[in-house]
Amino acid sequence: MVNLDKLFRPRSVAVIGASRNNQKVGHLVFKNLIESDFKGSVYPVNPKAKTVLNQPVFSSILDLPKKVDLAIVVVPANIVPTILEEIGQSGTKMVIIISAGFAESGPGGLENQEKLLAISQKYQLRILGPNCLGIINPSLNLNASWGEIIPKKGNIAFASQSGALAAPIIELANEADLGFSYFASLGNKADINEVDLLEFFNQDKQTSLVIAYLESFQEGQKLVDLAQKTTLKKPLVILKSGQTDQGARSAQSHTASLATPAKITKGFFNQTNIIGADNIRELINLTKLLNQLKNKKVGEKTVIITNAGGPGVLATDAIAKSNLSLTKISSTTKRKLIKLLPQETNLDNPIDLLGNADENTYYKASKIVLSDPEVDNLIIILTKQRGTKVEAIAQKITQMKTKKIIIPIFMGGKSIKKARKIFQESNLINFPAPQDAITSLAKIINYQKRLKVKTAPNKAKINSQKIKKILTQKNKLVFNEAEGFEILSACQINTPRFIVFGNQGQGLAALEKIKFPAFLKILSTEIAHKTDLGAVQKINSEKEFLKHSNIMNKKFNHPEFILAEAVNGEIELIIGVKKDYVFGHLLMVGAGGIYAEIWQDQSFRVLPIKKNDAREMLSELKIYPILKGARGKKTINLIEIEKALLSIAKLAESFPEIDQLDINPLIADSKTVVAVDIKISLS
Amino acid sequence: MVNLDKLFRPRSVAVIGASRNNQKVGHLVFKNLIESDFKGSVYPVNPKAKTVLNQPVFSSILDLPKKVDLAIVVVPANIVPTILEEIGQSGTKMVIIISAGFAESGPGGLENQEKLLAISQKYQLRILGPNCLGIINPSLNLNASWGEIIPKKGNIAFASQSGALAAPIIELANEADLGFSYFASLGNKADINEVDLLEFFNQDKQTSLVIAYLESFQEGQKLVDLAQKTTLKKPLVILKSGQTDQGARSAQSHTASLATPAKITKGFFNQTNIIGADNIRELINLTKLLNQLKNKKVGEKTVIITNAGGPGVLATDAIAKSNLSLTKISSTTKRKLIKLLPQETNLDNPIDLLGNADENTYYKASKIVLSDPEVDNLIIILTKQRGTKVEAIAQKITQMKTKKIIIPIFMGGKSIKKARKIFQESNLINFPAPQDAITSLAKIINYQKRLKVKTAPNKAKINSQKIKKILTQKNKLVFNEAEGFEILSACQINTPRFIVFGNQGQGLAALEKIKFPAFLKILSTEIAHKTDLGAVQKINSEKEFLKHSNIMNKKFNHPEFILAEAVNGEIELIIGVKKDYVFGHLLMVGAGGIYAEIWQDQSFRVLPIKKNDAREMLSELKIYPILKGARGKKTINLIEIEKALLSIAKLAESFPEIDQLDINPLIADSKTVVAVDIKISLS
Repeated sequence: MVNLDKLFRPRSVAVIGASRNNQKVGHLVFKNLIESDFKGSVYPVNPKAKTVLNQPVFSSILDLPKKVDLAIVVVPANIVPTILEEIGQSGTKMVIIISAGFAESGPGGLENQEKLLAISQKYQLRILGPNCLGIINPSLNLNASWGEIIPKKGNIAFASQSGALAAPIIELANEADLGFSYFASLGNKADINEVDLLEFFNQDKQTSLVIAYLESFQEGQKLVDLAQKTTLKKPLVILKSGQTDQGARSAQSHTASLATPAKITKGFFNQTNIIGADNIRELINLTKLLNQLKNKKVGEKTVIITNAGGPGVLATDAIAKSNLSLTKISSTTKRKLIKLLPQETNLDNPIDLLGNADENTYYKASKIVLSDPEVDNLIIILTKQRGTKVEAIAQKITQMKTKKIIIPIFMGGKSIKKARKIFQESNLINFPAPQDAITSLAKIINYQKRLKVKTAPNKAKINSQKIKKILTQKNKLVFNEAEGFEILSACQINTPRFIVFGNQGQGLAALEKIKFPAFLKILSTEIAHKTDLGAVQKINSEKEFLKHSNIMNKKFNHPEFILAEAVNGEIELIIGVKKDYVFGHLLMVGAGGIYAEIWQDQSFRVLPIKKNDAREMLSELKIYPILKGARGKKTINLIEIEKALLSIAKLAESFPEIDQLDINPLIADSKTVVAVDIKISLS
Repeated sequence: MVNLDKLFRPRSVAVIGASRNNQKVGHLVFKNLIESDFKGSVYPVNPKAKTVLNQPVFSSILDLPKKVDLAIVVVPANIVPTILEEIGQSGTKMVIIISAGFAESGPGGLENQEKLLAISQKYQLRILGPNCLGIINPSLNLNASWGEIIPKKGNIAFASQSGALAAPIIELANEADLGFSYFASLGNKADINEVDLLEFFNQDKQTSLVIAYLESFQEGQKLVDLAQKTTLKKPLVILKSGQTDQGARSAQSHTASLATPAKITKGFFNQTNIIGADNIRELINLTKLLNQLKNKKVGEKTVIITNAGGPGVLATDAIAKSNLSLTKISSTTKRKLIKLLPQETNLDNPIDLLGNADENTYYKASKIVLSDPEVDNLIIILTKQRGTKVEAIAQKITQMKTKKIIIPIFMGGKSIKKARKIFQESNLINFPAPQDAITSLAKIINYQKRLKVKTAPNKAKINSQKIKKILTQKNKLVFNEAEGFEILSACQINTPRFIVFGNQGQGLAALEKIKFPAFLKILSTEIAHKTDLGAVQKINSEKEFLKHSNIMNKKFNHPEFILAEAVNGEIELIIGVKKDYVFGHLLMVGAGGIYAEIWQDQSFRVLPIKKNDAREMLSELKIYPILKGARGKKTINLIEIEKALLSIAKLAESFPEIDQLDINPLIADSKTVVAVDIKISLS
């Protein structure tokens, strides 16, 4: 457990590289610290200067009158190691390295960064950076960064792997009156990374919402664990860039990051209930909305009132696309509305108040709708038409007393500027158009829904001893189908009935155990495309068995054979395990069949998983409706598929040496689930 | 051909229902007209008033001193028919009906609207509305609407099916200095619809860009034709709402619209090169960008320069998702950049100028990049960091002389406000974040790309006489498989070899023509689920043929049979024709197989199609990479699939009585394409 108190709440700070030149970062950091009304001591360190901004300068951290809590390093990259040695000697443990020129700048820089780590281990230092902007703690008036804009005080903790991207976000947040508990720029994450920050933000009482911009993940296993704990207490919103191959390459050169493909990120977010933001606009929207909602419970049942039909239709489209539900207006509520509204009003949802609606119409209609127990959220749309009293309506809406969610969508430019301000002052967020509001709301509703999911540990039982015996065969890293089938049996996963034999005589003798049709295959881990090479044949009779085993015997020079019964079913799935550099073992389930690679219908989890993850993984597949028995078809035996997923998860957890595992296909119907082919390899 | 000159350029206007009450729409419309510096004559008509706004009032349009070009009706719905009669008698032919209470308000209103149409036919009137905002022609200072905000003069024509949605769009457009040639609110589209407006906008020389918000389409065939002609001359951007089922229901109650499912809209847009906007923000972004680009040619090769790595990564993600290409920086360009930029600069695309980049760095780097012939577009990202001279950089960028596309993305709030203004004054659009800019740019590039596609007529040859003979059988609306196969043969589409027989003897006699395996089926158009009912059997030998034909003969009481050879292939497709209320015959091609309904991988075209549409339809499918031979597989015979599509298109065009046609599956491999099952019905 890392304690970042001295990073975020230092009582004394040294700026090493505090410069007289007001164009230099070392000057700016020192200036920020002494001008930001921070109550602790701040010492400039610079061997070449006597004073900086009228403060006496120390030539080394070792010359300071006392040991400081935090050292900030802003010197050229090549000097950083020497400086870090001195910091270590001084007894200071917490360091921010702002200097660039490390892992992000190529092999030489990476080598330099590794030097830093060696020194930090020697002295047990903790380092934020290098190549970062620093940190800000608004409640201490502490701006330990070279950033220009200080966020307001509040409850949002913000970690950014790009300092320069944080600047506009903080500026926009300030203009929206959003307050922050902490800001930290992660830079190259040589030591302190998102896991450390999350641990601190999770425990911090002042922080009620955590947001982050990340270009890569580190320490995946810890991150999953911590994210799961955090999201139970407070929402965690992450904008992850580098989600495409090109973007990942670009992130690599920016902060020396390891890539995580988008679909693995998605699985990780779902598993941990992280709210993923798709872009900067959405990150800001989610932050605003979560900050407004605080601990309010949000539901799916949404009503729209509007003075304009068009935006109502657009909002309806957005609601349908977000899987929210447009509440059916109850007859009780309709009776109340009829008394209020003109005869030609459409009382179905969206409720069209018509173009001449005034503040009272808006207020009373809203009140009636919000009093309906079947309504969770109210979206209030307005376009300024002739005579529309925009500010009066906004004012009246802010007077509404309700625990339910109100989202105003007042559309336009200057004409709604004052209304936007009125809402902001009452902690309501005005959205400029329906779609963004509704997409963000849907994500927040989904977050709250997942909070209610009951989790249970994965209690799948596997015969570890039997599996161990197979996996620990001397020098064996790749396993044949028969060994694979035995491992699956030890995991209580069905396989086809099969026999293994070396010569035709043995085969014939065992043939009575097998039903036709069956597949005769060469038992080899070395033949890659068995079908193309004639190493697989469908067999319908003893006669065909004799014929094809003869041909294959000649062709492959007395090989070992496996004969396995053909399996029929409704649907083909794929189950896989692979090792990820960041997250360790990943479990995948996906749609199988000939188009599997086109549809890319897969869902992922980081292992270990919980019991409920198995069903959730299936429910994230596009083919889930088919599994559930869409179009009058029988429901596929989901319980058995879940069991198979949980067993494979347990298998990979119990045998970390498994590098890759592929069951393709897993054939399922309403009754049985059978793993028809399996590949396992160790690392 | 409708001439809307008198709607958009009237020399005289009467406002029927011009009211003294300044809260009434009739007052507002009249006020707008006389206060907007319109040079034509404007007459108020109102039997109950002597003057309105100091103008003498006429009690009927029949009392006016002369026949007016345009009559605007703003009276209660129930009086509108009477007023329309008078307009007809007065000789005025062009009418705007602003009054609401017609088709949008239920069955009674619809009846009322039909009355209007009867009157308009009697007098050959043309009506815009009812239930609309009116029209605006900024170049004539003509505000014939009750809207408050007049757009600036310019070259954008804007049609909106929601008047109230137009208001914020026009306000935002004004603030972005966008100028309009015309604005028209369509309302219920009882008479004048998007086809009429498009015809006018297409021919209008002042209009260089057409944008529209539509909740429904009308006269699909004409619309396709006109959209195709228009987009060759000027871009046409449409935001179509009601794309979800819920949204369509909501549009229905708003403007009495017929629904068009999203995937048909997509096919229609692709076929006509309409640029589809997904939401209001995108409509505005596309409008801004198209207005900036004018006739500039845009290409796909994009370079990003940035002073911040994070937004560069996000922009790269957006480019990859939009299928644009991030240009590889040439060694020549790199050599030039090395001289300019600090050593640690990343010269790969995105080019990171680093946080301290000033106006000269931005200017020179941009100039170097733009001089590279391999670069089409330059995206210039900036976040305000300590010392960043935002305005100076903006100013310098506007001085760049180039025919290539420059898109500034200066991020932040107040700190970039002035820069935004500087760009706006130089006709450059600043985007607040990368994604929106890149998505819109990609759509515009795609529009220009499609302009270059060479089209050719569909010259598929079908044997119409033979088909006619089958389709015109007495009282027959549904056709059996054998008849379907004959029609396909007449369209030069392969079918399996088959025989039809009534008794086993005939069947046996013909059996030598057929190869096993084959499918024995009952030849009936009445049995819906043949497989489930035992009306289909796979047959591998004469023996099996005898057995199963016996069983089926008993079960179905001496039916007619069809025996058709089984067909193997790599891939299953579906080809369909159906009739749409708005567009007429639609052609569909989609992925077949058991998951067809889940993937919904289909593309549509309105018939008739051109030759190139067949390939384009296929290229819009998600399985197109498989058809093209992804993963080392052989290319499917695309030429034959295209031929089949073109033949089916020709078939449906030649026989408009075809109500529905389904080829499911069409089985294809690298050599042959065979229609294995077909259903045809007439209306």
